Amino acid sequence: MKIDHVGVAVRKLDDSIRFYEESFGLKVLHREEVVSQKVRVAFLGDPGERATVELLEPIGEEGAVARYLASKGPGMHHLAFRTEGIGEDMKRMRLAGRPPIDAAPRPGARGHEVCFLHPKNCDGVLIELISASDRGQ
Amino acid sequence: MKIDHVGVAVRKLDDSIRFYEESFGLKVLHREEVVSQKVRVAFLGDPGERATVELLEPIGEEGAVARYLASKGPGMHHLAFRTEGIGEDMKRMRLAGRPPIDAAPRPGARGHEVCFLHPKNCDGVLIELISASDRGQ
Repeated sequence: MKIDHVGVAVRKLDDSIRFYEESFGLKVLHREEVVSQKVRVAFLGDPGERATVELLEPIGEEGAVARYLASKGPGMHHLAFRTEGIGEDMKRMRLAGRPPIDAAPRPGARGHEVCFLHPKNCDGVLIELISASDRGQ
Repeated sequence: MKIDHVGVAVRKLDDSIRFYEESFGLKVLHREEVVSQKVRVAFLGDPGERATVELLEPIGEEGAVARYLASKGPGMHHLAFRTEGIGEDMKRMRLAGRPPIDAAPRPGARGHEVCFLHPKNCDGVLIELISASDRGQ
């Protein structure tokens, strides 16, 4: 697998985008509302690099990112790896006694299938696996 | 700047290395004891990619990572960017009202000069800036 992005929970997406642009010269590569996950997100990075920073602002007060912000404040939220075989990976994690939070891959940002692994099974890190292939594309 | 690595605080470096190797297929690219920062670290990733995961295990109980583990437990600790001009960046951060924790660049892992930016100035994220050029090389 390859590192895809670091997810950062933020309160105001536009303010945080400006901070990352002005401080570190990152560029916005993609913006999207992921309604199913109750977030609006922006991926920032260098167009020539794979790894990006995903800034996540909650939509409303009920999603996982809204709850994270309410309890912990803004900060690093998850670490995402790109994989060629998400189904096999999920099976392997189950067999290793680290079952994914999701029973099956589900739609994530940028048209990819994703699943999440619980921090308690991953050294305290919420891990996202992202299928390398696009949904229906 | 480009994303260099995500730092993850862990309790047992060897156990965590095995977890990242077996679960995500990452490879150990470098190991080092950074005595000045009271940590032993391993950088893992894909040899063809720039971004890596840095696992940090404290040496003793007095360093910043030991204190982080004691108060928050294992998890994502910092986000690091590689920069061509660390001195200019530190000056720009100071002028923007976000002074770095370090007054001047200091030696970090892999022979690079580094400095840290406080989470309170960076949307809750501890940011490390890493000089692209090696110390005295």
